[in-house]
Amino acid sequence: MTTTQHEYVPGLAGVPAAKSAISNLDGQQGILKYRGYDIRELAEKSNFSETAWLVIEGNLPTKAELDDFDYDLRHRRQITFRIRDILKSLPATGHPMEALQAGVAAFGMFYPKNIRDPRLNYESGVRLVAKLPTIVAANHRLRNGDDPLTPRDDLDHAANFLYMLTGEEPDPFAAKIFDVCLILHAEHTINASTFSAMVTASTLADPYTVISSAIGTLSGPLHGGANERVLEMLKEIGSVENARPYIEEKIRNKEVIMGMGHREYKTMDPRAIILKGLCQQLFGESGSTPLYDIAEEVEKVMAEKVGAKGVWPNVDFYSGIVYDKMGIPVDLFTPVFAVARVAGWVAHWREQIADNRILRPTQIYVGEADRRYVPMEERG
Amino acid sequence: MTTTQHEYVPGLAGVPAAKSAISNLDGQQGILKYRGYDIRELAEKSNFSETAWLVIEGNLPTKAELDDFDYDLRHRRQITFRIRDILKSLPATGHPMEALQAGVAAFGMFYPKNIRDPRLNYESGVRLVAKLPTIVAANHRLRNGDDPLTPRDDLDHAANFLYMLTGEEPDPFAAKIFDVCLILHAEHTINASTFSAMVTASTLADPYTVISSAIGTLSGPLHGGANERVLEMLKEIGSVENARPYIEEKIRNKEVIMGMGHREYKTMDPRAIILKGLCQQLFGESGSTPLYDIAEEVEKVMAEKVGAKGVWPNVDFYSGIVYDKMGIPVDLFTPVFAVARVAGWVAHWREQIADNRILRPTQIYVGEADRRYVPMEERG
Repeated sequence: MTTTQHEYVPGLAGVPAAKSAISNLDGQQGILKYRGYDIRELAEKSNFSETAWLVIEGNLPTKAELDDFDYDLRHRRQITFRIRDILKSLPATGHPMEALQAGVAAFGMFYPKNIRDPRLNYESGVRLVAKLPTIVAANHRLRNGDDPLTPRDDLDHAANFLYMLTGEEPDPFAAKIFDVCLILHAEHTINASTFSAMVTASTLADPYTVISSAIGTLSGPLHGGANERVLEMLKEIGSVENARPYIEEKIRNKEVIMGMGHREYKTMDPRAIILKGLCQQLFGESGSTPLYDIAEEVEKVMAEKVGAKGVWPNVDFYSGIVYDKMGIPVDLFTPVFAVARVAGWVAHWREQIADNRILRPTQIYVGEADRRYVPMEERG
Repeated sequence: MTTTQHEYVPGLAGVPAAKSAISNLDGQQGILKYRGYDIRELAEKSNFSETAWLVIEGNLPTKAELDDFDYDLRHRRQITFRIRDILKSLPATGHPMEALQAGVAAFGMFYPKNIRDPRLNYESGVRLVAKLPTIVAANHRLRNGDDPLTPRDDLDHAANFLYMLTGEEPDPFAAKIFDVCLILHAEHTINASTFSAMVTASTLADPYTVISSAIGTLSGPLHGGANERVLEMLKEIGSVENARPYIEEKIRNKEVIMGMGHREYKTMDPRAIILKGLCQQLFGESGSTPLYDIAEEVEKVMAEKVGAKGVWPNVDFYSGIVYDKMGIPVDLFTPVFAVARVAGWVAHWREQIADNRILRPTQIYVGEADRRYVPMEERG
């Protein structure tokens, strides 16, 4: 029991839980940086495997480092038949995030772990980044009664994932856009799932366990899943003509409009700006879709009505439209988020154990002070 | 971004993260209460299923409530063949806590969930309390190449678990002591695993996911596993004669002695007092063991040397000896902790969602401020 009295802040909002050197954001300016690098620059010039290295290791890799890391990632994509058997045993009706949480906890059992050994920690990180897409894709194919596909080491991280999902080698431009989506979701300071990874990590649990906790936390509808709901909203709107009355009514009734605004950004979410540009290219090149046309109209009406108040489309507004266009089913949007964010989770796990202190806050007790046990015969 | 500046406290030690009405402890007096009831009274007069109800629902059950709850617990112990298949696919060499984390995440996929529905939440809690022991026991038997045993609904919670593990109906006195161990571990305010459950719960994730996170966090060596290490220490001491020199040397070298002292209790851990009494009965009745004799000597030497400083044996000191005597393998000690604590986790999950605010603290950024991307050719 500590004698210092700290203030109770619901949700620990604004309470610092760690010193961290992984990412930071400036909500006023709309800037997000990984390890000091602006994500606008990373989205333009880097790729997911280089960005994953940067996020985890702290610096841009040398050529030799990137070659090794990329090789390691490509060659650790396979999952054993036992993990496939586990996925086969899961009901097709369950949510793929639960399958992913179970799969990651299970596959940790197959590997040596000793968090005092930097080489093993590197290997664990590689395995997690490399195999998460394979679990997501294998589970998706199995629930549809299809054989899972063997990962292809001649494809990069993004292209291989799309291949494992659909069985078709993706169009290079679509794969490139998907790669940018992975970069944009690789890290975002301490949110609930990252914090959950840190809490689990702080007991010195193994990295697979840590990531499994983070996946569980991401699965909650208040955290992951916002882009799923954007897509549902666009489908509900149904036509370009219906966009204006739909949005106006929502604003009048002070109802939440999905994919708009962000707790942290007071200007447009920088990830949304990048994705919006990519959307324009993607849909410009391969033709628009009814959903994209509706999204453009929603954006226009929103800019007109509440843009001046700083309410802009966020990253979730565009990512769902992109994933939908690529044929990714809606209930895989959150697993795709995990496929990207695993880089950040691994980085926070490594940062936590490098200077560990168990994360164990306290409570304010508001319950009964003193009650005496009453024998069953005497209870009312 | 909040503008209020809160102090950074490493590990959030002493920082209140919630208002809670589930349990409280007085470290000066050595008192632990669940819902206002002293655990000394519960250990003497209650049983695990009644205590689980109390912890989860907030009050002692009426006869009708307890009859229903106990019936529900007994009849939801079975796990499906698919969960057994999953456990069969896991390598026998992995830690049973990983199997438990995977199993719980997986079995959530089989059930309806809607955390706005109190009846479903009750059902989820019952399933978790009822099925965790079955997963632990089934996984243990499978890793030894034995068939898992069908749970027996004619046995109470504690006796059925020991039966599923060993295939033998336990001695009633041993089962009673094991039941008390479950009562004593059912809840203990906000520690790391409970906090982890709350973080995951705060995103409105489903209860199976929440408990899976908590299990992951409990698996860390800084959290669960202390009683494993007590047993290792007693084995290392090896003989009653060696206890005094061993302890004296540890004290001289200021080394940690396992199972001694507790962060919260400044006097003897009340759970340890109860377990010590039960140990004396258990070993008095069925004969001592070399390990118990060593433990008694360690306790005597410690009382003499540092008892005055408030360093006393804690609950872990005795629980390992009890579990060992009952034939529970050392690497199941932490899973057994989970089998008891699931009651507390379920209670904290329910409390969290009843008045939810996402648990999302912030960070102090200490990394690079501004770096520019360097093309690969120009990197050093």
